[in-house]
Amino acid sequence: MKLNHHYEALEESYLFSTIAKKVAEFQKRNPEASIIRLGIGDVTRPLCTSVDMALVEGAQEQGKAESFHGYGPEQGYTFLREKIAQYYQVQMQAKVTAEDVFVSDGAKSDLGNILDLFSADNTVLIPDPVYPVYRDTNVMDGRRIVYMQAAKENGFLPMPDAGQPADLIYLCSPNNPTGAVYNREQLTQWVAYAREQNAVILFDAAYEAFVQEGYPRSIFEIPGARDCAIEFCSLSKTAGFTGTRCGYTVIPQELTREGMRLHQMWLRRQTTKFNGVSYPVQRAAAQVFTESGMMGCKANLAIYQENARVMAETLDQMGIWYTGGVHSPYIWMECPQQMTSWEFFDDLLSKTGIVGTPGSGFGRNGEGFFRLTAFGSSKDTREAMRRLKSIYGEV
Amino acid sequence: MKLNHHYEALEESYLFSTIAKKVAEFQKRNPEASIIRLGIGDVTRPLCTSVDMALVEGAQEQGKAESFHGYGPEQGYTFLREKIAQYYQVQMQAKVTAEDVFVSDGAKSDLGNILDLFSADNTVLIPDPVYPVYRDTNVMDGRRIVYMQAAKENGFLPMPDAGQPADLIYLCSPNNPTGAVYNREQLTQWVAYAREQNAVILFDAAYEAFVQEGYPRSIFEIPGARDCAIEFCSLSKTAGFTGTRCGYTVIPQELTREGMRLHQMWLRRQTTKFNGVSYPVQRAAAQVFTESGMMGCKANLAIYQENARVMAETLDQMGIWYTGGVHSPYIWMECPQQMTSWEFFDDLLSKTGIVGTPGSGFGRNGEGFFRLTAFGSSKDTREAMRRLKSIYGEV
Repeated sequence: MKLNHHYEALEESYLFSTIAKKVAEFQKRNPEASIIRLGIGDVTRPLCTSVDMALVEGAQEQGKAESFHGYGPEQGYTFLREKIAQYYQVQMQAKVTAEDVFVSDGAKSDLGNILDLFSADNTVLIPDPVYPVYRDTNVMDGRRIVYMQAAKENGFLPMPDAGQPADLIYLCSPNNPTGAVYNREQLTQWVAYAREQNAVILFDAAYEAFVQEGYPRSIFEIPGARDCAIEFCSLSKTAGFTGTRCGYTVIPQELTREGMRLHQMWLRRQTTKFNGVSYPVQRAAAQVFTESGMMGCKANLAIYQENARVMAETLDQMGIWYTGGVHSPYIWMECPQQMTSWEFFDDLLSKTGIVGTPGSGFGRNGEGFFRLTAFGSSKDTREAMRRLKSIYGEV
Repeated sequence: MKLNHHYEALEESYLFSTIAKKVAEFQKRNPEASIIRLGIGDVTRPLCTSVDMALVEGAQEQGKAESFHGYGPEQGYTFLREKIAQYYQVQMQAKVTAEDVFVSDGAKSDLGNILDLFSADNTVLIPDPVYPVYRDTNVMDGRRIVYMQAAKENGFLPMPDAGQPADLIYLCSPNNPTGAVYNREQLTQWVAYAREQNAVILFDAAYEAFVQEGYPRSIFEIPGARDCAIEFCSLSKTAGFTGTRCGYTVIPQELTREGMRLHQMWLRRQTTKFNGVSYPVQRAAAQVFTESGMMGCKANLAIYQENARVMAETLDQMGIWYTGGVHSPYIWMECPQQMTSWEFFDDLLSKTGIVGTPGSGFGRNGEGFFRLTAFGSSKDTREAMRRLKSIYGEV
């Protein structure tokens, strides 16, 4: 009996599990402390009315013989896949068909499971800092990881290095945790590099709903991406589905390597290891892409965007360097007083009750930085900024 | 760029996808044909009232700020894990704690994903015939598979062979597709063998709700199983969750191999590659384990059990050999007129409109057999039996 020993190379606990544990311990020691959670990127606004109504209707349908739904297609219902394809075509002028779309229970699952399709003998490019799932899932498989340096100097947006061989390339734009977003010209360079390397770009578009006019929201807005990219997206941030669970993955039919179609391989993977997303959840997800659904989701996003503006304004007043917050719900700030990321985490929590995420949890280049999210309530966000200012003052 | 070439060793399509395609083509050619689906093991009864009410309430909660649920624990909410543990303790006298339980979106996902924890360099014992997911997921990883011969002679219940080395052992009881169920003495032998081999039993208990008095429903009813077994279970059949999606996996804390705790590895896997099950679905699942939930589910199961009885009675009258249908919703019958499994599939579909599952899809030993499910409506089941009798008559 041999286990997968690559697990021994992982940190014992996933970043956000460690934070949750630390916060629970703090709360236990200080039961009266008023904690404001700006750590994990979890939304706080409820589902918008028309989307929740669709979820409720879907749930009601499951209780009646004439409207009951058993097993659905593993790749998702056509009614939802068509709506997602339309969203790409109309909102982004990106060429995506319903056939290309696989509905999932979230981007995190698919980002992890997609690696089933690739040999462990590949070189993977991962930005540093970045969402830890890319790193951890590849460590679990024992793949060679090359980190792309993201720093203040390049606006936390690493660009391809023609001399660096690569097979898989992770891009996350708008970036988690830095909030940096690639422009069209930069993504065009990435697509050219991927095609030259015969590599596949794994494009995480989970934050696309925050992108402002003039910047690409999908890798498929870039010509030539359909034969070198897979895109992962989620309704978690777009529509507040963090607890309701729905996402989607786009694998164009043209994407082939070594004579194999990745779309076909993923279909085989999903039909064998997955049984599709809960029917009422797919009903709610389809409602997101209607006019009333989109309006409701945008009203929630506007609240988060205003939070980001308030946070940015406070940091400006305090003279603390930061980036993000424009195309993204994340503010990526320098830790005050030259603290390390975890020092600031502990200091901030104990002095103000604010929970953030230590930048070093996202990679070596994150050391000395800190991530705050704009997903709190307006009231909490304002109160957090008041506390931040009162303790760390003006520099 | 290297793909996972083990995919080339798979049949192009997952068994049930092939069947769905064949049926769709038949329906297209014969738009007026009345098709009765007794193929895929999909339930037809809606969720029972109290479970559906919980699903609706959970959906409503997602629309209000004060009751909205964002990210939940990846391993499932404590309110559900505790109910599942109680179910084991009270209904089965099996020692399972809430800590041991991981909530999933279904047994199929976890049965596939659990292999992440094991090296590809292991020997896997798989019964033949069996649920094709065990075979396909191991082929995808390139693991050595040894098939255990299940046939009429051993009641389709293979027993351990002390001379056969094994690292992973798949057991499915009640069995899919044959409906055969292991008794306590037989499972005790399997546990002894696994401990001797230092192997891990992957026990699929998806059909436990069909087991009649006197037979074990969980591997954890067997002393010594906690340090050599993982159990996969599902609400798909127990509570009609095929389209609502919820299951659970039990990994006892004591289960260690090579100094690593499998519970801890799976927690690391799930926190990294999964974001938990939809909150309203977990609310509904918790309701299954209440008194009213259990009563409602049992009323639905009674309908399926009556269907199985009707099917068995018909085959008895026709003099066709079969097994199953007692501890299981599946009838495993010999194909009439010495047809092969696929010959009978085509013949049956074209002459009667009945869809079943060819036994050979479950393995070499399934050739010449055919699986019918009792999950249809009472009316359809009776009509199907009438057609079967009228075409294949008495032998």
